[in-house]
Amino acid sequence: MTRRTVIGVIGPGDDASAAEREAARRVGQLVAAAGWVTLTGGWNAGVMDAASRGAREAGGLTVGLLPGRDAEGASPGVEVVIPTGLGEARNNLVVLASDALVCCGMSAGTASEAALALRAGKPLVLVAPAQETAAFLRSLRRGEPIAVADAEAAIVALKRLLEPS
Amino acid sequence: MTRRTVIGVIGPGDDASAAEREAARRVGQLVAAAGWVTLTGGWNAGVMDAASRGAREAGGLTVGLLPGRDAEGASPGVEVVIPTGLGEARNNLVVLASDALVCCGMSAGTASEAALALRAGKPLVLVAPAQETAAFLRSLRRGEPIAVADAEAAIVALKRLLEPS
Amino acid sequence: MTRRTVIGVIGPGDDASAAEREAARRVGQLVAAAGWVTLTGGWNAGVMDAASRGAREAGGLTVGLLPGRDAEGASPGVEVVIPTGLGEARNNLVVLASDALVCCGMSAGTASEAALALRAGKPLVLVAPAQETAAFLRSLRRGEPIAVADAEAAIVALKRLLEPS
Amino acid sequence: MTRRTVIGVIGPGDDASAAEREAARRVGQLVAAAGWVTLTGGWNAGVMDAASRGAREAGGLTVGLLPGRDAEGASPGVEVVIPTGLGEARNNLVVLASDALVCCGMSAGTASEAALALRAGKPLVLVAPAQETAAFLRSLRRGEPIAVADAEAAIVALKRLLEPS
Repeated sequence: MTRRTVIGVIGPGDDASAAEREAARRVGQLVAAAGWVTLTGGWNAGVMDAASRGAREAGGLTVGLLPGRDAEGASPGVEVVIPTGLGEARNNLVVLASDALVCCGMSAGTASEAALALRAGKPLVLVAPAQETAAFLRSLRRGEPIAVADAEAAIVALKRLLEPS
Repeated sequence: MTRRTVIGVIGPGDDASAAEREAARRVGQLVAAAGWVTLTGGWNAGVMDAASRGAREAGGLTVGLLPGRDAEGASPGVEVVIPTGLGEARNNLVVLASDALVCCGMSAGTASEAALALRAGKPLVLVAPAQETAAFLRSLRRGEPIAVADAEAAIVALKRLLEPS
Repeated sequence: MTRRTVIGVIGPGDDASAAEREAARRVGQLVAAAGWVTLTGGWNAGVMDAASRGAREAGGLTVGLLPGRDAEGASPGVEVVIPTGLGEARNNLVVLASDALVCCGMSAGTASEAALALRAGKPLVLVAPAQETAAFLRSLRRGEPIAVADAEAAIVALKRLLEPS
Repeated sequence: MTRRTVIGVIGPGDDASAAEREAARRVGQLVAAAGWVTLTGGWNAGVMDAASRGAREAGGLTVGLLPGRDAEGASPGVEVVIPTGLGEARNNLVVLASDALVCCGMSAGTASEAALALRAGKPLVLVAPAQETAAFLRSLRRGEPIAVADAEAAIVALKRLLEPS
């Protein structure tokens, strides 16, 4: 069995803050160092771009599920570009293709992915979430998003979830 | 031009409360009375079922976009059953196919639809939302969900949005 | 149970011949007269447009599953416009949402729908197919496309399939 | 720019002949040897399985876009398993994600992918096609499927298409 563990990294595109981008870059680096594949929405912006570049810097494999029908707008950090042609319906694929997801920052698109992750019962780790984000996602009750302070803590949480001793 | 106005009604399935089901039934009735089409996720449960039945009681047209690949599990209130075979990716179709959406209650699936509605810039009316729901959706900033007290107020809000004088 | 029977009408868009458009218009009229819903890919061109207009002329309900994310390009004959935002992936929805399909003419997109119909085991009626179309679709062995000479014969075939005495 | 070239390999699942499986295995080996990624529908059967195993044997990267919502049924030859949850609508993703496609054998699902490839203007190479397959696909006129005798000739054709000198 050659199947590799895939970690989805989700978060805002153009509206991502510098801190969110930096957290995503660090998550990508650590996911790669753990030997996992980094999966994002593929876009050349914000958290998707930062996570992909971070993973590549650390020699990791990166996959991007783009909303469009071709590779236009893909992050240069994405090795395997998968144009889905599905628009925002691709958000559910980001969720299903991930063994667990890490969320850096929030936006409407990101919120749909976080909600779908809970719906699908996928482990979801929130890095430094805003108070209303944590309160809302916890109120959904299905699944239990884990809130952590930074990228390093996110990886510790993922290892606990995915490699139970 | 024969195109009809379509109102999406979203909310929990099996976990819907009696009050949420009743609000959804009433929304369906009033949507039908306004001459609009009622669109739901099609399921024979909770808000989807109640809205479809309400609309049918009032002689309205009902459309259901099901997650499965056949009509199994469709609400008997749905006249035009559209099995999408897309699983939860169909949530984005519920949003895109609606001119505006009314949300009665909350769940992980519903949250994904509400977030995708904001993402797509679709008018979203929340009926009696919980405080953390309203706070979170407003924090997403794209679009501005409107909170109302009941089904009647939701229809007033829809008429203002869709039929500006 | 209020669920209505849905007939998908598939065929070329801009490249449809006058004869194919006329057959599609007549199929739409007869589908409507039979009390069935006419479903198409929704586009304002070729067979999709002709079938939708024909059905409307006869007072039938028409549904269009568009590839785009809004109603742009929808046939004026479509009453319930469902923008899927899926691009050509919506072809599988046209198939799944239909109780049976009628095919007038051929194109690459149409071929994908005909093949998916056979894949899904949906009854498929070919109106005046080219010889290589009939030969190929029959070679796929799953399902058995029925070839007929004209719209009237297509409706006879549909009635036999859907309303077995 | 780290984006890698992706070759889709399509063909029947359970109904694939021994010759079709052998051709697919050889295509996978040669795609991997060329430094390209092998993409399939991911299934543990027929051409998809054979191509993935062949590519892995040669040290290549393999990606599978599965119809289901989890990894069940994935070929052990697939390294990056992407459960799409889209059913047969995922066929369009196999096409969009491929820079070019190689087709070994035919089935209803395969026919939909070949037709969608022509629709999308993707290069399509048919390995030892049946006469009615070649005749039909050529009649669709958009794009021009290339017919070759074996896996080696398929790779020669791909190199000419993708690495024009």
